[in-house]
Amino acid sequence: MIETPYLLFLGDAPDQLSAKVAQGIKDWRPDNAVGQFRMPGCKADVGLTDLTLAEAKEAGARTLVIGVANRGGVISQAWKEVLTEALMMGFDLASGLHNLLANEGDLVAASQVSGSTLHDVRVPNVQYPIANGVKRSGKRVLAVGTDCSVGKMYTALALDEAMRKRGMKSTFRATGQTGILITGNGVPLDAVIADFMAGAVEYLTPDNDDDHWDIIEGQGSLFHVSYSGVTMALIHGGQPDALIICHEPTRAHMRGLPDYALPTIQAVSDMALTLARVPNPACQVVGVSVNTQHLNDAEAEAYLAKVEAETGLPTCDPYRQGADKLAEALAAL
Amino acid sequence: MIETPYLLFLGDAPDQLSAKVAQGIKDWRPDNAVGQFRMPGCKADVGLTDLTLAEAKEAGARTLVIGVANRGGVISQAWKEVLTEALMMGFDLASGLHNLLANEGDLVAASQVSGSTLHDVRVPNVQYPIANGVKRSGKRVLAVGTDCSVGKMYTALALDEAMRKRGMKSTFRATGQTGILITGNGVPLDAVIADFMAGAVEYLTPDNDDDHWDIIEGQGSLFHVSYSGVTMALIHGGQPDALIICHEPTRAHMRGLPDYALPTIQAVSDMALTLARVPNPACQVVGVSVNTQHLNDAEAEAYLAKVEAETGLPTCDPYRQGADKLAEALAAL
Repeated sequence: MIETPYLLFLGDAPDQLSAKVAQGIKDWRPDNAVGQFRMPGCKADVGLTDLTLAEAKEAGARTLVIGVANRGGVISQAWKEVLTEALMMGFDLASGLHNLLANEGDLVAASQVSGSTLHDVRVPNVQYPIANGVKRSGKRVLAVGTDCSVGKMYTALALDEAMRKRGMKSTFRATGQTGILITGNGVPLDAVIADFMAGAVEYLTPDNDDDHWDIIEGQGSLFHVSYSGVTMALIHGGQPDALIICHEPTRAHMRGLPDYALPTIQAVSDMALTLARVPNPACQVVGVSVNTQHLNDAEAEAYLAKVEAETGLPTCDPYRQGADKLAEALAAL
Repeated sequence: MIETPYLLFLGDAPDQLSAKVAQGIKDWRPDNAVGQFRMPGCKADVGLTDLTLAEAKEAGARTLVIGVANRGGVISQAWKEVLTEALMMGFDLASGLHNLLANEGDLVAASQVSGSTLHDVRVPNVQYPIANGVKRSGKRVLAVGTDCSVGKMYTALALDEAMRKRGMKSTFRATGQTGILITGNGVPLDAVIADFMAGAVEYLTPDNDDDHWDIIEGQGSLFHVSYSGVTMALIHGGQPDALIICHEPTRAHMRGLPDYALPTIQAVSDMALTLARVPNPACQVVGVSVNTQHLNDAEAEAYLAKVEAETGLPTCDPYRQGADKLAEALAAL
């Protein structure tokens, strides 16, 4: 659990894209951030007030979140002066970078002096149980993809927003580092030890009110040979009541696997549903989320209509249209 | 890689069953063991010559393998004198117990003094790659189960033996601690970090001669919600040419999951084959291995005939009958 609100550290970001973690926090949990901190030469701006560390502290910020990624995911030496000063002022520090805060001696030393906490959200800090498969109360929906990086997190966050607007009870459950930084908690599933993956998902989505929905962020794809085991653990640990199939229609091959064609939406739907009915025989596929960012408006509209006709399922692009259609499908379940 | 030959440490085993790791080594790799070491009160005997440490050293033993498990998988204080003495004499020490040799200060100290090695085979000692899905040369067969602990390792070892007898080129590829101790190497798959599971299986089963078979030890089950992600990684990382379905017909429910019925052999076969054809479209289900230990001779014979008729696949119990039928099916592929 990372303490909010945050001050978002953009550092010396070379472009807007490199600040996508900060942008995600601003877009999805604006109440979690009191402002942004930019160093000289920073080329990113997520549209929050620029604050000094002292101003952010005054505004109530508890944690400085590294909202920028540079090449290689390293912790830049150029950031160290600010990060150390923040720790000495009592800020906690949170990072989803590949290189760990815990391996930076100067930051560890500063955190020990001030009693502040270093959060490396890529590393599990909980001893998760082995999954027991016992049916839990409350409802769960899981985003499953035809491939990696097709918009599963975006779909889940947009669905969470649409459900709240309808007055439904929902919680976005993060399973990757960006989602964990956005919400302040979750499970870094790809870093969990194999035997405990499904148990970690059970831990993340405990018993809840009968009318409450956990919206579980998906990972990988059942058809992506590098990461399919993680997807499987989400399906069996999550025991979802509903699945949303996520797809990006312009991919020439599976991400990082030039010899692997994408599966059809129907193939993913059939496979995921068969597997999901092991822990939850009532599970249904309720909709399709299409990432149409590489299509123009007319193409996107035509593609969405085609998928909806072929699958008979509510189909939308949550980025272009919002996720109301998917929220409605869940409400009707 | 654990250096062979071994001296098998049976310690103060309370019964024969507790020495099943040592028994497995004796049964499947007798050339790997020069003898057994028993302490006063030991109730197990795997049928090897009782040797002192000095006699075993003289006979060429390189590693003392803890071939016994006591309740809780701890390293007993009663064993320490012998284990320390062995280390000081230059034996390496290997264990698949839950508690690690590396956490026992006295054993670590002794190994440092003598320069000998502690092998905790539950813990990966390799940084495995992320799977790349590239097609590898050589052939691979994977045992997949309707449940956990239905005889997948036994099936794989028996198949390896039957194939060698037929003059086929084969290698048993261990994916669990018992298999690793039996053969001296392998991947402790259930302890690998999620993102690297499939890559660990690729690492375990590299390019090989076109007529060589890797026989991959299975883990878990696609239908066992606690461990299905590990099974998935075996199917996608192993890119098998052939699958053998393993089943135990008297289970009332999935192991450890009282609310979960076992899937049918056909359901496991269909699911595993669909998934296996993602990396390897030529994959076939070639046979069924039934663990009939809880059936009498007539029941076993009738059950095997029934499965063979229903599935149209060569079906046998490798323990009762050997695995010739399965080796033949692979040779015919």
